[in-house]
Amino acid sequence: MDGNKIIARSLAQQGVQYAFGIVGIPVIDLAMAFQLEGIKYIGFRNEQAACYAAQAIGYITRKPAVCLTVSGPGLLHVIGGMSNAQSNCWPVIVIGGSSDQAQERLGAFQECFQVESSRLHCKMSARPPNLSSIPRFVADAVKLSTYGRPGAVYLDFPGDLLNATVSEEDTDWIPSIPEPPSTMASPCQVAKAVKLILAAEKPLFIIGKGAAYAKAEDPIRNIVNQTNIPFLPTPMGKGVVSDLHRCCVGPARSLALQKADVVVLFGARLNWMLHFGRLPRFNPDVKVIQIDISPEEFHSSLPTAVALHGDLRTVSKQLEEELVKTGHVFKDSSLWWMSLKEKVCQNREVNQVSILHICILPFMKQSQRYTP
Amino acid sequence: MDGNKIIARSLAQQGVQYAFGIVGIPVIDLAMAFQLEGIKYIGFRNEQAACYAAQAIGYITRKPAVCLTVSGPGLLHVIGGMSNAQSNCWPVIVIGGSSDQAQERLGAFQECFQVESSRLHCKMSARPPNLSSIPRFVADAVKLSTYGRPGAVYLDFPGDLLNATVSEEDTDWIPSIPEPPSTMASPCQVAKAVKLILAAEKPLFIIGKGAAYAKAEDPIRNIVNQTNIPFLPTPMGKGVVSDLHRCCVGPARSLALQKADVVVLFGARLNWMLHFGRLPRFNPDVKVIQIDISPEEFHSSLPTAVALHGDLRTVSKQLEEELVKTGHVFKDSSLWWMSLKEKVCQNREVNQVSILHICILPFMKQSQRYTP
Amino acid sequence: MDGNKIIARSLAQQGVQYAFGIVGIPVIDLAMAFQLEGIKYIGFRNEQAACYAAQAIGYITRKPAVCLTVSGPGLLHVIGGMSNAQSNCWPVIVIGGSSDQAQERLGAFQECFQVESSRLHCKMSARPPNLSSIPRFVADAVKLSTYGRPGAVYLDFPGDLLNATVSEEDTDWIPSIPEPPSTMASPCQVAKAVKLILAAEKPLFIIGKGAAYAKAEDPIRNIVNQTNIPFLPTPMGKGVVSDLHRCCVGPARSLALQKADVVVLFGARLNWMLHFGRLPRFNPDVKVIQIDISPEEFHSSLPTAVALHGDLRTVSKQLEEELVKTGHVFKDSSLWWMSLKEKVCQNREVNQVSILHICILPFMKQSQRYTP
Amino acid sequence: MDGNKIIARSLAQQGVQYAFGIVGIPVIDLAMAFQLEGIKYIGFRNEQAACYAAQAIGYITRKPAVCLTVSGPGLLHVIGGMSNAQSNCWPVIVIGGSSDQAQERLGAFQECFQVESSRLHCKMSARPPNLSSIPRFVADAVKLSTYGRPGAVYLDFPGDLLNATVSEEDTDWIPSIPEPPSTMASPCQVAKAVKLILAAEKPLFIIGKGAAYAKAEDPIRNIVNQTNIPFLPTPMGKGVVSDLHRCCVGPARSLALQKADVVVLFGARLNWMLHFGRLPRFNPDVKVIQIDISPEEFHSSLPTAVALHGDLRTVSKQLEEELVKTGHVFKDSSLWWMSLKEKVCQNREVNQVSILHICILPFMKQSQRYTP
Repeated sequence: MDGNKIIARSLAQQGVQYAFGIVGIPVIDLAMAFQLEGIKYIGFRNEQAACYAAQAIGYITRKPAVCLTVSGPGLLHVIGGMSNAQSNCWPVIVIGGSSDQAQERLGAFQECFQVESSRLHCKMSARPPNLSSIPRFVADAVKLSTYGRPGAVYLDFPGDLLNATVSEEDTDWIPSIPEPPSTMASPCQVAKAVKLILAAEKPLFIIGKGAAYAKAEDPIRNIVNQTNIPFLPTPMGKGVVSDLHRCCVGPARSLALQKADVVVLFGARLNWMLHFGRLPRFNPDVKVIQIDISPEEFHSSLPTAVALHGDLRTVSKQLEEELVKTGHVFKDSSLWWMSLKEKVCQNREVNQVSILHICILPFMKQSQRYTP
Repeated sequence: MDGNKIIARSLAQQGVQYAFGIVGIPVIDLAMAFQLEGIKYIGFRNEQAACYAAQAIGYITRKPAVCLTVSGPGLLHVIGGMSNAQSNCWPVIVIGGSSDQAQERLGAFQECFQVESSRLHCKMSARPPNLSSIPRFVADAVKLSTYGRPGAVYLDFPGDLLNATVSEEDTDWIPSIPEPPSTMASPCQVAKAVKLILAAEKPLFIIGKGAAYAKAEDPIRNIVNQTNIPFLPTPMGKGVVSDLHRCCVGPARSLALQKADVVVLFGARLNWMLHFGRLPRFNPDVKVIQIDISPEEFHSSLPTAVALHGDLRTVSKQLEEELVKTGHVFKDSSLWWMSLKEKVCQNREVNQVSILHICILPFMKQSQRYTP
Repeated sequence: MDGNKIIARSLAQQGVQYAFGIVGIPVIDLAMAFQLEGIKYIGFRNEQAACYAAQAIGYITRKPAVCLTVSGPGLLHVIGGMSNAQSNCWPVIVIGGSSDQAQERLGAFQECFQVESSRLHCKMSARPPNLSSIPRFVADAVKLSTYGRPGAVYLDFPGDLLNATVSEEDTDWIPSIPEPPSTMASPCQVAKAVKLILAAEKPLFIIGKGAAYAKAEDPIRNIVNQTNIPFLPTPMGKGVVSDLHRCCVGPARSLALQKADVVVLFGARLNWMLHFGRLPRFNPDVKVIQIDISPEEFHSSLPTAVALHGDLRTVSKQLEEELVKTGHVFKDSSLWWMSLKEKVCQNREVNQVSILHICILPFMKQSQRYTP
Repeated sequence: MDGNKIIARSLAQQGVQYAFGIVGIPVIDLAMAFQLEGIKYIGFRNEQAACYAAQAIGYITRKPAVCLTVSGPGLLHVIGGMSNAQSNCWPVIVIGGSSDQAQERLGAFQECFQVESSRLHCKMSARPPNLSSIPRFVADAVKLSTYGRPGAVYLDFPGDLLNATVSEEDTDWIPSIPEPPSTMASPCQVAKAVKLILAAEKPLFIIGKGAAYAKAEDPIRNIVNQTNIPFLPTPMGKGVVSDLHRCCVGPARSLALQKADVVVLFGARLNWMLHFGRLPRFNPDVKVIQIDISPEEFHSSLPTAVALHGDLRTVSKQLEEELVKTGHVFKDSSLWWMSLKEKVCQNREVNQVSILHICILPFMKQSQRYTP
């Protein structure tokens, strides 16, 4: 078996189903080996776009897809994509062919420090030292990209390693890495969170991409349905609960953020997109309940009032269970709901007119221009 | 207030109590500011040793100590220490003075890329952009060094930042970062672990430094006392349960590792120190139950049979509770215990003779040589 | 004056004439400032292509052009271009906007370690610490990109620095950095080279992109005309002497490389493109005379017989002067010339047929297909 | 032959004579191999000091010495030394043993990213891919550390590479890399420098470590003797011309720097040690003639009036030749010499008294204290 086959089989054994990329020296045979092992290979015109596509698969399916590149510029063109996956906490495995080890420091074709170039933008960046360790490195790549906070992984394969051969028995095959183990917040922290939610006059849920990635739709929908508390999705958190749900206050986003006294972050970060949770866009006395897989994310811009460390789905279920027990329903007749609804109505009207004028009418005119 | 005072006060507010280092340009006043804020400063002769000392405090107290260095060689002499803290998962905060920003790229005194030089060996490496952000960076340093898997943090302070001043009100003081939130394994994984332990014919507990760091002595001692299962401490895991405990099989280490059919890792890694959990030092059919704060640690050298993701103390308590319920006691009369005890006795004898011949007698002779 | 104006004026003062890029946060005003200072700004659709365009200008004009990018992905999309410029020894200055320093580590819009990300792919990667030092950093960028072996430079400008203001007098303007100083090989090394050339039975000149960059056309053409020695251009060295010159043996490339006993490298490297100067593509006893601006380039794949360290134009002139003194003419009637000419004729014929069949005929057919 | 022998023999063939370090896993046999090949090995107590010692040899002999370390902390303890060699432009080759490649990412003994950790502090940081390429990497290390601007090189050898074997014939032995080729400034720049020196009313020579490293004593002494122009040595430039020479104005350093109108830098940099060549320590109208091996060093803090790019010894000879032709002697009776001499006399007196009071008397008292 050559390196190409070992890589392809290891990926297939780990459940990887898609590869995106551009073939060339030295990875032509690798793309074919993917196909032979049942991995769907989608060819692109620029590595840049291939890497963004691969991470979308990772985000949607919780299984990393591969982005395959040639050496030198091929790999360097996906640094932006790796960094994006890393920032967005999306799994992706970049596989780069690289020049033959025997030609190192001689000015080989597209010779480049690929492992080092990727280091800053990945959870793991490595070149397997030999053929028999490839399945272990592939398993590690799948694990690192999906366990804890998901992210990007880079694996580097010099041409001479891809083309070397070893007998199948000398290869250390690794069983499929299971889904990440679930982890829960401590019950007393959950109790503290419930108490804070019950006492809130202006509660708000913010549903982020961490909730979407964790497939936490069921418990979060149940929580919203049960408590009738208003929620906002972040752009990537849309769809966990429908934008058309009666509790969605997207059209009153600014008001909701500015006045809420207790905010529950379901896998959302208080970064630029949420104005850092700070004045003038947030209430300076807001109390933040935060659920996150990454403990380092707590207390990032504001002190976290209640830090619930665990995976989004499991902790949301814990929260659901405790909230259901209380039978708490946040009244439609509360001042908070009344002011939010008024704003929602106002903004819906404005928006519908705007959409007509800004988006649809010009497009209709433009279409006319291009239509025979 | 100048930069020195803001740094010192921020550290004190975050509960930092010790600083180790060497003073010189530009951090002389910073060491004095530490003392004025009640942080104990211990001067060293070489930065290298100061950094190792600082991380020992972090390991023992769960609060990072500071290692203080001058610019250039001062900081570079602690790269080894930072990397050691990072590898050992011990909290430490390195603070390096650096040359004035205004002289950058002019060949300033001991000018050096300090933030970049530290990057590979830290969880966080940063230079605060201005005085008012210092408390935030210090809070982040304390958080990053202790939350999740603990490790090293580097903070860089150019001389001109240390000596600049700002009014106290313009500084964004940050409340003390609490202890990391506790996190638990899922009950069904715990149940699976208990079932495996109960079914084991040759069970073995391995107690690592993660257990020591997490102060998990109580639940682990209870588990050992309850179940009568043999245990091995790693070198840094010693003392969680006494080496003199009847269940300690340290003197039969090789046999215990080689024959165990179920191993529970309490905050220990299957690295070189545990022979990677592999042949010829481990049973190839061994089943590994692993408790770890870092999910990326599971499945590292072997597939983990049961992955219990959470902090060591909390998960050990979960395990204790479930094991106590079963009333399980592993019998002294089992073949496993009998073979272990026999080996322990044999090796104790050999060791006592060896210690006499290798350590004590030569030393007595040598002492005689040097004694008048 | 704000940061934008200082950057633009500094670049203009240093003779920079072109900028390529994509505008967006935070560099919109910077592109406008370029135009106000007379720097031609060319907008692109992808930063990747902009960077390749910018370095082409640098190669052709010996003055770096600017590649302008937004933060995060903007900059990361040009890592490939920077690395290409660095590998090809072409001057280029990448200017990246970056997120506000005050928002560092808070999850700012497209926050990214830009200076560190560029480090491996540049001669200089830096963020000016304040407005008044900008002209010094720009002058340094121009100097580093063009002095010694040319290459890429990265300058990083956070949004708050771009928008800050300072009075014109407080800015340390820097006079225009002159062309790199010329440097010469030692006369005794030149004499040694001449002696070797005169004694050669199968001499060959290889003209590389270093000769083209150095504008060494005059001395090299004179040397070729005077000595009648066969030459080969590398792909980027084409045009220094015309491919139509009687001494060009491009069509007999393989033979020329394989049999030459003395090779003079005019700014060419023995990398993959020249088969590392090794068997089976080179004569194992070949003696290499190498002219290079970078002393680290000598002895790279083979021991260099005569190392002429200096700039290509100056050293070529030294060589011209000494060769003219000898009056040496390598005879057309030599065995070397006769075998080369025969091969040139053979290959020309084959090629013309091939070009017809491979390139032109199919294209004609294809054109027909698309023509109504 | 095993890896140890190939490394040792390659170093010996390249003229390396000394190695400093600490042995341990995996480099015990390597130190022995050094000794068998005639390389003198000096054992140290801390790698830190070993690296500083090794670079001193490089500075004095122009041939790099080796600093030998074990993996992990061993290598990291010399990062400071590498960076110092790099900053001071001194040749040194650090050789680090590293953990077995087959155990990579498994938590091998002292496993560490050694090549990457060294990257920022070296001219070259690499791990040879196989045994047969070792001589090439060693030759490259010697070349890189001494050619152009000298500096540090790091070579990484995993234990399994050190212990692997290959037949002697399969190893690509490399002939000894010669001394760096000499390179000269252009005659018209030299003429411009001479003209400026002749026209100076307050000329000053500054002799730096570049002159000492280049063994430029003869031409510089001749220039000083011929022209009678006052000179200052930098700390590392001492001894190129004796401090006791009549033209040495060390005791009037401040005055000399502050009033000079033309300064010639012989291998000295306008960094912090020379106050960046700026106000208030330098005359703002000073004209700087600079001789340097590194073209990137010109125009660094001030615009260079005449940039003489070449090696110090060769360019100093060019300057000597041209200055001798002019017969120029800078008169003792000039105002410049008179004011300098007066200052020298004043400061000598003050210093002798100070030395007595600050250094000698207290030491005598202290000695008394410790003497029985």
